[in-house]
Formats: sequence, C-alpha cells, structure tokens
Amino acid sequence: MRTWLTALAILAVAAAPAFGGPLRAGAEAVRDRALKDSTAYDYVESLSVEVGPRLAGSEAAARARDWALAKLTALGFVNVHVEPFPITAWLRGPEAAEIVAPHPQKLAIIGLGGSVPTAPEGVEGEIALFHTYADLLAAPPGSLTGKIAVVTQPMPRAQDGSGYGALNPARRQGPSEAARRGAVAYLVRSLATGVSREPHTGAMNYAADAPKIPAAALSVIDAILIDHLAERGQPIRIRLKLASTTEPASAWTVAGEIRGTEHPEQIVQVGGHLDSWDPGTGSIDDGAGMAIAVATAKLAGTQNPPKRTIRVALFGAEEMDFAREAFAAAHMAEAPRIVVIGESDIGADAAWSVQIPAGSLKTPEMQDYAATVAPLAVYVSPEPATGSGDDVANLIKAGVPAVAVRQDASRYFDWHHSSEDTLDKIDPTQLSQAVATWASFVYIVANSDIDFRALAAAAAPAKPGP
Amino acid sequence: MRTWLTALAILAVAAAPAFGGPLRAGAEAVRDRALKDSTAYDYVESLSVEVGPRLAGSEAAARARDWALAKLTALGFVNVHVEPFPITAWLRGPEAAEIVAPHPQKLAIIGLGGSVPTAPEGVEGEIALFHTYADLLAAPPGSLTGKIAVVTQPMPRAQDGSGYGALNPARRQGPSEAARRGAVAYLVRSLATGVSREPHTGAMNYAADAPKIPAAALSVIDAILIDHLAERGQPIRIRLKLASTTEPASAWTVAGEIRGTEHPEQIVQVGGHLDSWDPGTGSIDDGAGMAIAVATAKLAGTQNPPKRTIRVALFGAEEMDFAREAFAAAHMAEAPRIVVIGESDIGADAAWSVQIPAGSLKTPEMQDYAATVAPLAVYVSPEPATGSGDDVANLIKAGVPAVAVRQDASRYFDWHHSSEDTLDKIDPTQLSQAVATWASFVYIVANSDIDFRALAAAAAPAKPGP
Repeated sequence: MRTWLTALAILAVAAAPAFGGPLRAGAEAVRDRALKDSTAYDYVESLSVEVGPRLAGSEAAARARDWALAKLTALGFVNVHVEPFPITAWLRGPEAAEIVAPHPQKLAIIGLGGSVPTAPEGVEGEIALFHTYADLLAAPPGSLTGKIAVVTQPMPRAQDGSGYGALNPARRQGPSEAARRGAVAYLVRSLATGVSREPHTGAMNYAADAPKIPAAALSVIDAILIDHLAERGQPIRIRLKLASTTEPASAWTVAGEIRGTEHPEQIVQVGGHLDSWDPGTGSIDDGAGMAIAVATAKLAGTQNPPKRTIRVALFGAEEMDFAREAFAAAHMAEAPRIVVIGESDIGADAAWSVQIPAGSLKTPEMQDYAATVAPLAVYVSPEPATGSGDDVANLIKAGVPAVAVRQDASRYFDWHHSSEDTLDKIDPTQLSQAVATWASFVYIVANSDIDFRALAAAAAPAKPGP
Repeated sequence: MRTWLTALAILAVAAAPAFGGPLRAGAEAVRDRALKDSTAYDYVESLSVEVGPRLAGSEAAARARDWALAKLTALGFVNVHVEPFPITAWLRGPEAAEIVAPHPQKLAIIGLGGSVPTAPEGVEGEIALFHTYADLLAAPPGSLTGKIAVVTQPMPRAQDGSGYGALNPARRQGPSEAARRGAVAYLVRSLATGVSREPHTGAMNYAADAPKIPAAALSVIDAILIDHLAERGQPIRIRLKLASTTEPASAWTVAGEIRGTEHPEQIVQVGGHLDSWDPGTGSIDDGAGMAIAVATAKLAGTQNPPKRTIRVALFGAEEMDFAREAFAAAHMAEAPRIVVIGESDIGADAAWSVQIPAGSLKTPEMQDYAATVAPLAVYVSPEPATGSGDDVANLIKAGVPAVAVRQDASRYFDWHHSSEDTLDKIDPTQLSQAVATWASFVYIVANSDIDFRALAAAAAPAKPGP
C-alpha cells in the first residue's frame, strides 16, 4: 500500500513543478512588489485628472485612446496598438425633471444610455408608482396608458455586487415592459446603494416589439421623496425632458504585450475597459480595473522574462455593450492560444476570493497561488470561474479558460455610473492588494506550462453512455 | 456655626423652589413625552415633501409661509400670524463651469448667494490657485489681474461646527479680497466636510470699495481635481458662467403662541428659520431646527397650562441675513418682556451640551434642568450662552437672555447648503433627543419665576471703582 502511494506521489512530482518551489518564490516576490508599487494608482490618477469622463463615441474617448497608447508605451509594453470597430454612439443632451403636482419640486434624474429623447417640450403625465419591479410586471396590458411608470425598488448592498444583477432588469427591460402596458415614459430609482442626490445612469435595451419610450434614473433621494409623497394618496404628476443624439462613430480596443520567451504564441490576457459613463471621471469604473490590469501585466512580466506572452487589453466600449462582440470577432481565431483570460471591472477595493478554471485547484501551480495570496486574506474558490468581465464573455463562452478576481463591491455601487465615480474613492492600499492578487496569478500562469483546458477536460464528469 | 448654616439653608429654600420638586417632575415628564413624540419628525417630513426648497423671495417661500401658518394652527398655537418685511431677493439662474485647459473637464459649481452674474458668454481666465485663504490674503495688489482666483482650503470637521466659522471669511469676503488684487472671478472649495460632487452654496458680502466679481463654490471633488491638476505645473484655464437676478420682494416671520396663565406678558421664545437655500429641501437647515422649536413649544406648553407665554418664531429670511434686523426692529420694544430667547439652527442630531444665561447655573431651577437632561447625555455648560441662532443675535446684543442647545454638528456640514440637505439625513431618535433637551428647559422657565436678568446682574463682576 505504501509503495503504491509513493509511486503515485513520484508520478505527480514528475508531472508538475513541486509545490513551494521557484514558481512560488517568484509569485511571492511579485506579490510583495505589487504591495509597494504605485503603478496602478498613478495610472488611474493620470486618467482621472488628464482625461476624465470618456463615453464611447465622444470626443473625450479619442483623447482617452491617445492617452492609453502613450501610457502603455511609456510603461514598456510592446506591440502597443489600436483595434478599431464601428459603433452607434449615444450622446447625452440637456435633461430635467420635476414634480408638477401636488407639491412642485425639481427632481435629480439622468437619462439611461440608449434612451430616446422626449419631445423638446418634454413629456408630462400622472405617475403609476411601483415599489417593486415585479409589481410593474404584474400590471395588466393597458393599465399604464398615458402614464409615467416609476419603479422605486431599492438595491441591496452585497459584497459580491450581486444586488446589481438582481435589479438589472428593472433598468434594462423596464422601459419596454412599461411601454407594453401603455406608459409614455419610465423612471427607475438609481441602481445604487447609499443615499445620494446624484442619479446613476447605465445602459437600457428596447425590446423590438414595444414602443420606445424615454427612460431615466431618479436619484435615490428623489425616489424616496416620491415614495413619501405617494403616501398622501393624491395623484402625482411629473414632467420629464430628455435630449440625446445617436450617430455612427468609432470605438477601439487598445492593447499591448510583454512577449513570452519560450511560448510567445501562448497568451495570458488581462484587461479592463477604457470607456466610462459621462457624469463622473470613471475612476472606479473602470479606471481602477484598467489600472489593476496594466500594473498586473507590468509586474508579472518584469519579475523575469515570462515564458508565455502577457497581453493587456483596454476595451473601448463596454458600457453600451459593444466591445464584447467586437473583441471576440477579432480574436476568435487565436482563442485556442489564449491560456487564460480575465477582466478587472469591479472597482478598486481589496480582493477576497479568486475563481480559477475548473479542475485546476489541486495542481501544484494553483496550490502555490493559493499559498501566495493567503496572506492577503484571499482564498481560491472551490467554485470555478464561469465568467469574468463583460468584454471577454464571448471568448469564455467559446471555451477560453477564465479567471475572476472577486473584489469587495460593498461600496462600489454607492458611486458606480454617477458623477461621484471619482479618484477620491480609491484607497491605494486596497488597490495594491488587488494588483498583488492578480499579478501573482498571472506570474504563475505565464511562467509555467499549466494547461487549463486539459485540466478542465480531465475533471469534467464522464458523458452519459449511449 | 451649625445654626447659622441652617438659617442660610432655610433662606435658600424660601427664595426658590426646592431642587427635585414638582418643577423637575414636570420637566422629566416633558422630556419623556418628547422622546416618544413624533411632532418634530412629522413637521420636517411634511415640509420636505410638501414644500421643499424655499429660498427667500421665491415663489416657494410664499408656499412655505402658507404651509407654516396652517401647520401652527393645526398644532393648536394661538395668535398665529405673519410679520412681513421687505428684502431684495437674489434668485439663481443657469450656472456652469469647466476646465478649458490643459485637460478639459466639467466642474460642479454653485453660485454664492448675492453674487453678480457673469456676462452671458461667461468669464474665462487662467487661475491663481491658493491652497489656503491666508495665501490669497498675502498676495500683493495687482498680482491676480485678469485671473480667476481659486481657494481650495479644506474645512475641518468639528462636533461644535466651529470649522465652518473658521473658514467663513473665505466664502463671505473672498470675492472682494480677490477683486482688490485684480481677479475677474472667484471660486472657493465648498465650505463642507465630507467628499461630495454636490457643491455647497451660502451667502457672500461684497465690500463697498472693491469691484464686484462673480463668485461660486466648487464641489469638494472638483477642488481636489484642481489640486491634482495643478501638481502638473501647467497653466490651468477655467470658464465660468453664472446667471442671477435681484428684485424687491417680501419676506416674513411666522409666529404663534401658547399663552401664559399667570404672566402672559412674559415671553419664552424659541424658533428656527423657515427659509432655506435652493438646491436641497432644507430638511436639516433649518427644517429640523424649526421642527425642534415647534415641538418644544407644543410639548412644553401642553404638559400643563404654562405660567408664562411660550412663543415660537419661524424666521423667513435667515440665509441672506435679512431676518436678524427685521425681527429685532419689530420686537425691540418688547425685549424687556422676553425672559429668554433661543434659536435652533444646527441640524437634527443629538444635543450634547446646553449653554444658559450667565449666573443661573446654581439656581434650583437650572439644577433641576441639569438633572433632567443628564440622562440624555447632555451637560449644562459652565460657559454661559453669549448667542443663539443668527436671527435672534440683535435681540441678544440688546440684552435679552439667551439659551443655546449645542447639537452634534459632526455630520451637518456634509450636506448643509447643498442638494443633499434632505429628509433622509434625519435620525428620528436623535431629533427627539434634541426636542427633549429644549422642551424640558422651556418647561422649567415657563413654569417658574426665574429672572435671568437679575441673576446675570448679581453674578457680574463689580465694576472697577472711580
């Protein structure tokens, strides 16, 4: 019995580097450098101050592109280039809303991305108030005819940000669901934690079979005001004005590399998105994510020349959902050569867990990784990664192994998509911890021969027989 | 010796009600009712929802007046009436600012109350940046010619709100000081604690001997942005547009009473101010203060019919400094009959200390008061009150005894004078504690014969001989 176990152990050692060997020492060195390194903070500070808001299709987005090219070049990346693709830009105009009756007050609102404008004089109507989105969905056809539908459901605060996903349909599909029932406009309480006067925008999607009605988000404070007012039982009338234009435009991915020395064709890809919503400086969404990715590639790629190529991709049109398809289309042919892919798009706070590809947790490489990040108060999840950021979703669907670093999102939705997404929200110590978590992973993968596809195939349950 | 002391003790008992007697029992009953009472919260909720912003001279101020008359009447006050006085209203128009160079970004600003407008096309100039107001005052004449002066000094957070007073000259006098040195416009970091994108307004005062230049407050976030940008060492250009109008208008004090049964001519006056700045709903400034005053008068006046008259005064034009003189002018003749006067104008959070008139601390009445509020974690200060709210300052200067309840102002300046001065900031438990602190004081004074003027005269140091 002992002999048999010993033989297995020897086989395992022969098949992979030993746990606790030079790979781990290198990963720990990258981790410790990251904790003291200011590349990420300097990156997002520069972006916030020198570019600011950079909605895809805007003039500022072109400035962001040029800034990113210069920044990657200055940081020593090679093959720094732009991959353009066409989009339909949506650009905001003047916006306003007010309670007209029974007690007039101005409302702080922001148009949802993709919303049609109102007529220049605006739209006015009595509101139909729903305290939950489910209540709106339960309203019968025709019941909202001529009305402005208002949904004031609050968003739960969650460490993993899951409160956002839970409420996303209220912003994405709410306008068409309201229109199907006869509504002439749609207002949703900002998908936001915290209580602020700043409304939070975000993309919406019209259904093909419903009239397109104007849609905006109320600040949390104004949604609370309407809830209070509604308790009086009198009809409430609101006037809403939204202006926006759409036009054909260009967007782009900006990318750079640190070339691998042994398998340059094998790609370890990290990234974040370069575009942002227009009210804030996009410092947390996704300046911080890009900063983490850029610092990760730089630190993991300069500890020693990596065996595999490390690529950083800065996606230029995430917020309006354009980059996902464009990037996948441009890179599908090389997908088999992408060893692992990840995107950092959940702010600047500390990581608490990492999801890695299925079947890889017990390998020496990933055990080394787990031991490297354990002192950061990070655990490697037994649940494998099934996705990462939106921009790499299509490649992951196509079979590219994924890594997802889970950062604490408890505060993220206090500011996300609002004018308060600004530099002051970033805690440099937490940002560095996130970089250390990412960079030690990328170091290990780029300096080993780990094959996540083979591990996933070996771990997959046998297919049922015929 | 013992006989002599006993005789003194008997004298003291004869001269005043016993400590711990019926007066204390009544005060404790008022205190305990206040802790469970919702009058104050209901008042400020109604004002916030049914009126909202109510800048003196605006149409909304007239709605606030009518609302207040109805509210005091419904609460059972008598002699509910309006005392009008003329003001010059300052009304805000559209406002905007942006960094033009070296890296364009929009700025969140708000015009200061009383500022002149810019030309319709705005004013543009290179900035002269001062990290402290003292640095601006140290700048030589002519050194700011053609420039926009920017002061980014942060405001300290303080429990007693003293950080606001310390920085007030930067907002009040900064525009004229900058103009004297040649500046064409003036921007000051919001006098605010916290870090928000919402700018905080407030009144300013032009010096008679300086050119009148447009003046606005930057949001704290935008002041931080300018500080970051300035570190690059390049000239910064800003464009500012401010519109405003002034016109003759009316303001008013709304007042009501609970009549005294023994000395109706003797007045115990509490109050707050009815006007607010225009961006928020004025829930903490001064909806909460009014609510505390109204609930105080109601609770202190209905425990039993009071011996003295309790008056509540709601001043209609505090923010632009008009009410102080108007109220004093109208009431100077009756000043000798005002037993004590106080104004509640420091938000909705819990009291921690009370300042009472000089020389009264050792009286049985005030010892009863100190014992009544001690369980609320409130102490009666050995430092006598030298003032209370701004609207009663001139009467206090004229010799009317003052009471000042010191509430915790640690959070107050996060929202004060901004769009985030809204109902959600009010913690009903803390609000009730503040009412209990005020109401037990008013109860004791209105149901005793305490004479603060005589006590102050007895306690005053003897005047030096000839």
